[in-house]
Amino acid sequence: SSAVRASALPMREAAAARMPSPPHREVALALAEEVYARLGAQLLPSAVPADVAEFVNGAGTAVGTLDVRRGAPASSIDFVLQSSLHCKVPNGAIDITSILIFLDASTDAPHFLMEFIQGSPASMVVILDLLPRKDLALHPEYIEKYYQNTQLDKQREKIEELPQTRPYRSTSLFVRSACSPTAVSVSIDCGQGGESILEEIVYGHLASVAKGVLQIWLDSCAGNTSEMTEVERDAMVKRDQIVRSKSIEVDLTANLPRMFGSDVSSRVIAEIRKAFGVQEA
Amino acid sequence: SSAVRASALPMREAAAARMPSPPHREVALALAEEVYARLGAQLLPSAVPADVAEFVNGAGTAVGTLDVRRGAPASSIDFVLQSSLHCKVPNGAIDITSILIFLDASTDAPHFLMEFIQGSPASMVVILDLLPRKDLALHPEYIEKYYQNTQLDKQREKIEELPQTRPYRSTSLFVRSACSPTAVSVSIDCGQGGESILEEIVYGHLASVAKGVLQIWLDSCAGNTSEMTEVERDAMVKRDQIVRSKSIEVDLTANLPRMFGSDVSSRVIAEIRKAFGVQEA
Repeated sequence: SSAVRASALPMREAAAARMPSPPHREVALALAEEVYARLGAQLLPSAVPADVAEFVNGAGTAVGTLDVRRGAPASSIDFVLQSSLHCKVPNGAIDITSILIFLDASTDAPHFLMEFIQGSPASMVVILDLLPRKDLALHPEYIEKYYQNTQLDKQREKIEELPQTRPYRSTSLFVRSACSPTAVSVSIDCGQGGESILEEIVYGHLASVAKGVLQIWLDSCAGNTSEMTEVERDAMVKRDQIVRSKSIEVDLTANLPRMFGSDVSSRVIAEIRKAFGVQEA
Repeated sequence: SSAVRASALPMREAAAARMPSPPHREVALALAEEVYARLGAQLLPSAVPADVAEFVNGAGTAVGTLDVRRGAPASSIDFVLQSSLHCKVPNGAIDITSILIFLDASTDAPHFLMEFIQGSPASMVVILDLLPRKDLALHPEYIEKYYQNTQLDKQREKIEELPQTRPYRSTSLFVRSACSPTAVSVSIDCGQGGESILEEIVYGHLASVAKGVLQIWLDSCAGNTSEMTEVERDAMVKRDQIVRSKSIEVDLTANLPRMFGSDVSSRVIAEIRKAFGVQEA
């Protein structure tokens, strides 16, 4: 496992030269370390080409990193995707840090999704969920197994009890529909001059909740295999494909070209499509 | 249609003798009038027995009314259910007013759900949704047709922009899962002495939003029939059954006995089960 972890480090070190490390990114990278520590032995080395592992736009105002580690054949992990984006804008910068861990069709356990989007020094958006792979209204037993019994909702309550948080709703109704009923989807706004308050929240509440959700996922989902009929598995795979395609469409093809131009972003999106196992629409 | 409407009136008049009319109930009854005006010709007369049309508990501290009108055979309406509950509690009273309009299997269009729950003079919970009948993550085209194109989300935004509203989350993860991503699910709290502010909101914003959602449902869902394969229809019917059974379980079998005792509530729940077409669990 140390050999596997070492293979990811050069990429992250190279990127660190230009990629800023706001507190939220430190929290995310610590979680990624934990993922690699727990799952490293099940992951193949990163196979992302160098010009996608780190990329910049022509003007040098935007920098991104992407790491994708596929699961080994015997593992139920499909891939671990970790990405950081930093993009200067007229009044500051946007920093986005994401970790996605998707499972393959040997299990019906939820995927792990974490996304931090910081658009100003004192405010950010947090999305943190175990993405369901079945129609929850049709499968109350799935809700019970992965969401009720794991007490996932307590993590959401912990962050929503902060007076600085408000619900964040994606403008995409599809994205809202793909999330679980326990999804953390909040904006944290600490107001003018609230940079140090946000920092405190990020290292405190946010780190603890993100770690809590990841722990639940690692304990209840990561090692899971599920008995399914062929028909059930086919239905799940079909649903997964749609969720994967639509997420790329909504999240990336809509935004990345604006930040990095069409050449760089096509290259990056092609690599993400490969990880997701979906064709261009 | 006037004969049909007349048949519902004696029930409502009898109930009016004991059932209080807080502002939210007046708003709900006006909407019910609109439903009967638009759909009356497609509805059969009420067939609810007198002791369920109006019911009280032994101590006389709780009173309820229930009206169920089935759709005529050629109509896509399965039933219109309208209910009011009033229950004295140590520090006041709880008033619940609901309108549910469910469609049958000739269409995949969403059901209409409206529930007002007032637990104190200055605060209440509002749930208002077009309940999806398909797995939205699997059917982006369904989201587009019934939720995106109808601009339903604007109604939610209109009520959430009020400073007195906060998101309300059902403690049941199933109920949350059954709702659409545009569902209005808020508590409105006007604070100590805020009775007249709440009244203003109820007759203003709330009446307008509830009417807006009903209008969308009447225009885009009520008259709808849908081409479906046998397999698609079977899947939808199965999903519908689960949503219906679980709603009764979560909403009624958990709460009604506490208010009305087991005899009265069994009678009422049996009648609702009949409307919903589901057997006792």
